Amino acid sequence: MTSSGHAPARRSAGSSALFTDHYELTMLSAALRDGTADRPCVFEVFARRLPDGRRYGVVAGVDRVLDALANFRFDDAELEMLARDEVVDGETLEWLRRYRFSGDVDGYPEGELYFPGSPVLTVRGTFAEAVLLETLVLSILNHDSAIASAAARMVSAANGRRIIEMGSRRTHEESAVAAARAAHLAGFAGTSNLEAGRRYGIPTTGTSAHSFTLVHDSEHEAFAAQVAALGTGTTLLVDTYDISRGIDTAIEVAGTGLGAIRIDSGDVGVLARQAREQLDALGATGTRIVVSGDLDEHAIAALRAEPVDGYGVGTSLVTGSGAPTASMVYKLVEVDGRPVAKRSSHKESRGGHKEAFRRHKPTGTAIEEVVYPVDGPPPKQGEDDRPLRIPLVRDGEVVPDRPSLEDNRQRLRHALVSVPWEGLKLSHGEPAIPTVFPDSYGHG
Amino acid sequence: MTSSGHAPARRSAGSSALFTDHYELTMLSAALRDGTADRPCVFEVFARRLPDGRRYGVVAGVDRVLDALANFRFDDAELEMLARDEVVDGETLEWLRRYRFSGDVDGYPEGELYFPGSPVLTVRGTFAEAVLLETLVLSILNHDSAIASAAARMVSAANGRRIIEMGSRRTHEESAVAAARAAHLAGFAGTSNLEAGRRYGIPTTGTSAHSFTLVHDSEHEAFAAQVAALGTGTTLLVDTYDISRGIDTAIEVAGTGLGAIRIDSGDVGVLARQAREQLDALGATGTRIVVSGDLDEHAIAALRAEPVDGYGVGTSLVTGSGAPTASMVYKLVEVDGRPVAKRSSHKESRGGHKEAFRRHKPTGTAIEEVVYPVDGPPPKQGEDDRPLRIPLVRDGEVVPDRPSLEDNRQRLRHALVSVPWEGLKLSHGEPAIPTVFPDSYGHG
Repeated sequence: MTSSGHAPARRSAGSSALFTDHYELTMLSAALRDGTADRPCVFEVFARRLPDGRRYGVVAGVDRVLDALANFRFDDAELEMLARDEVVDGETLEWLRRYRFSGDVDGYPEGELYFPGSPVLTVRGTFAEAVLLETLVLSILNHDSAIASAAARMVSAANGRRIIEMGSRRTHEESAVAAARAAHLAGFAGTSNLEAGRRYGIPTTGTSAHSFTLVHDSEHEAFAAQVAALGTGTTLLVDTYDISRGIDTAIEVAGTGLGAIRIDSGDVGVLARQAREQLDALGATGTRIVVSGDLDEHAIAALRAEPVDGYGVGTSLVTGSGAPTASMVYKLVEVDGRPVAKRSSHKESRGGHKEAFRRHKPTGTAIEEVVYPVDGPPPKQGEDDRPLRIPLVRDGEVVPDRPSLEDNRQRLRHALVSVPWEGLKLSHGEPAIPTVFPDSYGHG
Repeated sequence: MTSSGHAPARRSAGSSALFTDHYELTMLSAALRDGTADRPCVFEVFARRLPDGRRYGVVAGVDRVLDALANFRFDDAELEMLARDEVVDGETLEWLRRYRFSGDVDGYPEGELYFPGSPVLTVRGTFAEAVLLETLVLSILNHDSAIASAAARMVSAANGRRIIEMGSRRTHEESAVAAARAAHLAGFAGTSNLEAGRRYGIPTTGTSAHSFTLVHDSEHEAFAAQVAALGTGTTLLVDTYDISRGIDTAIEVAGTGLGAIRIDSGDVGVLARQAREQLDALGATGTRIVVSGDLDEHAIAALRAEPVDGYGVGTSLVTGSGAPTASMVYKLVEVDGRPVAKRSSHKESRGGHKEAFRRHKPTGTAIEEVVYPVDGPPPKQGEDDRPLRIPLVRDGEVVPDRPSLEDNRQRLRHALVSVPWEGLKLSHGEPAIPTVFPDSYGHG
């Protein structure tokens, strides 16, 4: 029994099939009755706009989508719930029992930039098999891309200095793992999150909190205990009592070979300057200074002139620094080869199955995102232009030899180098490049 | 092999032990060496402040913490990762293998209000066993309380009208399940999320999306298919093409007994008024009007005068409507019976093991949150005052007969009735009641 007094239906280990909205099942049920379930469809994932004032977005979560897709199956446990709560009828339950996605998926790989209207992911299959994936696909892409997009700005702001993700405590325990992954994709060196280390091989890091100093009878004893356990290369947290005395104590205990000190509160810019002078005066010229405590990309940028060697970022990273979701949508754009689109309001969509490439100057600077219909004549592409989408799933099978997380980190680094310089500014503004739908491209 | 090319360590089914920050393990390792690991400690969870301008917070996630605590164990799979990545030494690994939390936990039950400084949760145990829980406890409470706090404002704004959670697609797939639970706790009638239905018995709901209309040759055919599958009591989505024609078609297909129409875009206030007139003119006086599409508590409140029967809320709910984390912290406040606290900056904490009650007028209106040291003389409590904390874990065992989710929904309803009326305003302001630390209460 759970605390709600409700006996929960069983869960089949690892099935992702119920990370789904109720209406996808009722639509399926109705479509199975009238035969539209079998119509060949194209669904497209895109963002109508970037978060307010952002210059670019970073695609993340694609590999998590593919893993979840492989586990998207309705076993007894899932069917039991759907039957118990009378979500769908018996015929639909039988259809679901046999369900495996058998269509195709194409999309932007992780680490690629996206802009308003970029066709980030395209799912082709029957209406029945593709409509079921809406919520799962969007949950993953919207979360992970939001985090990666914020993280990329922080990495830019850090300007080559080492930056670590430590926001697990400020977000859902599973989001924390995905956030650590997205941050690493975007260039963070490591994470505090151990599960992210296990699941994705991301380097984990950490030394001590204020509680470790407080549980000891003195800061001196705490530092001595930490150095005994972790060596002099460790990072000592010096702001539990008085920072200046903390630094004296740290060097007294660890010697001038101390790896780093960490400052987690106060005006970290001023404190870092004072700490650098003090460390140098003590002869600890190689001891690094790490700062943390409510940093976001703006605070990181403001510290560029200060003697800071590394940043620890928490809350602002896992909450997308003001944009906790990427607001991507999953829209039906083609049925039986015909473009379709909603037409009643400002929330219009551009129908039709699309492709995309990014146009560049010969210098390598990106000029525009060109989005065009697959069925029409393709716009002229120059040798500096770059296709953006790759095949991800064919006939229900994930395409082998996917790019690795490390490949995708490289991809983002290269993509950011190609962005016009205004596009890397942290201030509010327009997307770094426009998205262009060639004239030949019919609307709606 | 994952996409990173890294062979992940195995995961023991359901263990929550690696939803933990690396530094908790290094602190443990160092504390085991010097004996401080065994010191009796008290850690306290509290929020230094409410999100900007909010009047109250709603505690949520406590039962999820207790479930996760029961699964917090280091099995082979967890130990393998910690050994592989050399997070801790062999002696610490052996200690972890035997680890079970054996201490006590007390706290605010779910559905209780909290204010700055409210001792929301207290963990008592040795340093070693309590320090390990920081990240897991905070992840859950910070996420779930953020969502419940936003949700409660939306329920207030809806003023008795039915409100449904449908934001799964805008947040991490597991956060979505927890968000649906937190929203239900706060008074939402149901959720679109099927996994929340399975896991927590929350009513799930949903009918169709625009894609369902678009996959059909006409809106008429789509509506007919939906009514055939779901009956005339269903909700028809009327804004795919032209809303007015959509309503005509809806009634033509379903008759005047149609359950509801849904409008998902445009100026929903104006559209609802027009729809009500049109429905009434068609004789469908009992057909309800449900609106959705980027609603938050302010938009909901603005629709109070409109003929809206229900709301569907997505993005703003799952992102905490501007406050995606509750910013609670987990601080060591007592060691060996002595209060301890960080002292270097504005981020001070009040040391000592604390209790709390809420003072009320004889009319039942809350006056203040009284937080006092367990060891001192307790402040005088009147018969209208109410203790706030309950025992949750004793000697490592979860206290049986926990309040159910339904009990906790009632608790929140009652607590909100007791809040002074200014405290229920949606506008920015001060906390609804002050948190008072009696004079006898030594600082630091």
